[in-house]
Amino acid sequence: MTQTKRITSFHPPRRTLLGPGPSDMNPRVMTALAQPAIGYLDPAFVTMMEELKELMRYAYQTTNPLTFPMSGPGSVGMEACFVNLVEPGDKVIVCRNGVFGGRMLENVERCGGVPVVLEETWGEPVDPNKLEALLKANPDTKIVAFVHAETSTGAQSDAQALCDLARQHGALTIVDCVTSLGGTPVLLDAWQADATYSGSQKCLSCTPGLSPVSFSERVIAKVKARTKGKVQSWFMDLNLVLAYWGETARTYHHTAPGNSLYALHEALLLLKEEGLENAWERHRRNHEALKAGLEAMGLSYLVKPEARLPQLNSVYIPAGVDDLAVRKSLLLDYNIEIGAGLGPLAGKIWRFGLMGYSSRQENVLLVLSALSAVLGEMGYKHEAGAAEAAAHHAIAAQHVAAAKVKR
Amino acid sequence: MTQTKRITSFHPPRRTLLGPGPSDMNPRVMTALAQPAIGYLDPAFVTMMEELKELMRYAYQTTNPLTFPMSGPGSVGMEACFVNLVEPGDKVIVCRNGVFGGRMLENVERCGGVPVVLEETWGEPVDPNKLEALLKANPDTKIVAFVHAETSTGAQSDAQALCDLARQHGALTIVDCVTSLGGTPVLLDAWQADATYSGSQKCLSCTPGLSPVSFSERVIAKVKARTKGKVQSWFMDLNLVLAYWGETARTYHHTAPGNSLYALHEALLLLKEEGLENAWERHRRNHEALKAGLEAMGLSYLVKPEARLPQLNSVYIPAGVDDLAVRKSLLLDYNIEIGAGLGPLAGKIWRFGLMGYSSRQENVLLVLSALSAVLGEMGYKHEAGAAEAAAHHAIAAQHVAAAKVKR
Repeated sequence: MTQTKRITSFHPPRRTLLGPGPSDMNPRVMTALAQPAIGYLDPAFVTMMEELKELMRYAYQTTNPLTFPMSGPGSVGMEACFVNLVEPGDKVIVCRNGVFGGRMLENVERCGGVPVVLEETWGEPVDPNKLEALLKANPDTKIVAFVHAETSTGAQSDAQALCDLARQHGALTIVDCVTSLGGTPVLLDAWQADATYSGSQKCLSCTPGLSPVSFSERVIAKVKARTKGKVQSWFMDLNLVLAYWGETARTYHHTAPGNSLYALHEALLLLKEEGLENAWERHRRNHEALKAGLEAMGLSYLVKPEARLPQLNSVYIPAGVDDLAVRKSLLLDYNIEIGAGLGPLAGKIWRFGLMGYSSRQENVLLVLSALSAVLGEMGYKHEAGAAEAAAHHAIAAQHVAAAKVKR
Repeated sequence: MTQTKRITSFHPPRRTLLGPGPSDMNPRVMTALAQPAIGYLDPAFVTMMEELKELMRYAYQTTNPLTFPMSGPGSVGMEACFVNLVEPGDKVIVCRNGVFGGRMLENVERCGGVPVVLEETWGEPVDPNKLEALLKANPDTKIVAFVHAETSTGAQSDAQALCDLARQHGALTIVDCVTSLGGTPVLLDAWQADATYSGSQKCLSCTPGLSPVSFSERVIAKVKARTKGKVQSWFMDLNLVLAYWGETARTYHHTAPGNSLYALHEALLLLKEEGLENAWERHRRNHEALKAGLEAMGLSYLVKPEARLPQLNSVYIPAGVDDLAVRKSLLLDYNIEIGAGLGPLAGKIWRFGLMGYSSRQENVLLVLSALSAVLGEMGYKHEAGAAEAAAHHAIAAQHVAAAKVKR
């Protein structure tokens, strides 16, 4: 018998997650996770599934019947959109202004689609004028794909404008709402978005591993009208998945990840109890507080104010400061995780996430104090008492924001 | 704003899961699930990942470095094996003796492979003589795919014989161990199996949604030597997944399902603490007890004795007994889930699972008593006191088995 070395139960350290996800879970979500398993066709489970779809429709602000969680991380939701919608030879405009636009491009290629890339500077939102020009130059475009909230930069694009343009030119839309859902307005019906996916572990503050998706009637029609063979993925084939998650049938497709679904049910319920608009406002308010503190320390934002995501704050690393040493000290000395830059932004920015349950005033103050201390230790010159100043700024910003809400 | 109807926290009823999976989780696994999230690149998380791979190698009895859990249900593990190994035009022999062989066939077709089907009666193991004949008739076969333990029938095939034949004819093997891993010997190195997948929610008694996979060096060589383009799935492309799960690199691919991984770590640790051979023996012993009881009630098995899986007991539904009414009464009156027949066996068999933590003496006695009562109520004539007789048989079988172990 092959033997193993001595291994004991794993107990994670208690971190404060202020990076690009996962975010901290509300204790109610953790409690929901720990409940016993039941069968995936149990009547009680089916009732829970229906509630989950209802809660997801609320979060997405849609009446799309086909709104449900895929049994895998956001990457599965993304791939499900592409393999179902893109048939070989289909022309797809992919807007790339960060890492996740690049992944969309990879997906188009692997589906045999013909990609047309709208390149945008990382940190900028997608320019609707560029999309319009590309649509005019490519009248045979079948699909426009873009990222609403680029997790790699913290830039938010104008989903309404991009969806409108695509529709005016007869193209369907695939919209990545991984980082936006629950943190900033996602209005599927208003946008008339077609295929949308998100992740469970960002502003929903649920366990990672689920991808809430929503599909318009136009998507279903296109999937049913496919002429060039079956969807290349058996696992992600909507025709099969719907036999389990659809309105009427309850046919076994795969074993649903029950405990994670319990947790998503609870996370979405928390969102509903708070109210979507209140959640958006809370994300905005804590962003204002963090911004006040970071700027008091002399740090500046990558993204211009009008395109900034409140839940993902990308700031330039000050000159001469050791990126890795700062993040390591925050993690190991203060139990705070923040995010590194990716791709061309590696070593140039930090990403401070204030997502879902992590978006709380106490976390803003904690990370500002810790960052100020760490930067001070590293010899970064900033005004004496910057931590305190930052905290005051933060609190003041909270009060201003709270006063605004009351008016 | 779109509103939802009144929804409250979900609390599943407490069932005893004696179907084809999911199985009951040990309380330690549920506790592991409820721990806080940490980042997927946190040093503590990376240490846990390495332990998980080590524990999985023990469960699979392999030294394959590439042994890790895919972030999705067993269907993802299955599809990952096919999309990585099967290139367009590759000839693949698929052995089909139940539902899951049929899924393998679907996968081959969607990868552009050329399937050759070995058809076997449902309930029978795959006949090695038939495989040998097919291999001789198809010397250009690249891959042989079969299910070790058919969840839809409870039949176990001779993995050693089938892997040996494939290897002798220069073909790689894809082996479905979804229902076997942890319940009956799975010996990857002895078999020299190439690509293997399993599920977390069967004899490992973990939360559903993970697929433990293991790949031989031959698989890596074939994936690296692909000539006909990229793996069609971005999410399942081993070249990318390995940048995260491999030996040296720790590059972000997708956000790992942290809580589910904590749970798998604990479930595998429980298996190691018990000892694989003890776990196999426990499954066998409880199977003997259940069998004694079911046969005392006049029920008979679908699968011949030498191919029976101890963890999945398929028995014929007695003539005149209402399948659905019995299962419904067991579920709603006794909180016991058992499995229905699938495909051609729908309405003809019941599937009693005794998997992982569900494989316990108290569950054997419980289900025998409940089934006897339900059948009695439905007018099925069986000897008076059959429940008690069954219980005595069960206990006697336990003692006999226990005595055997001691010798």
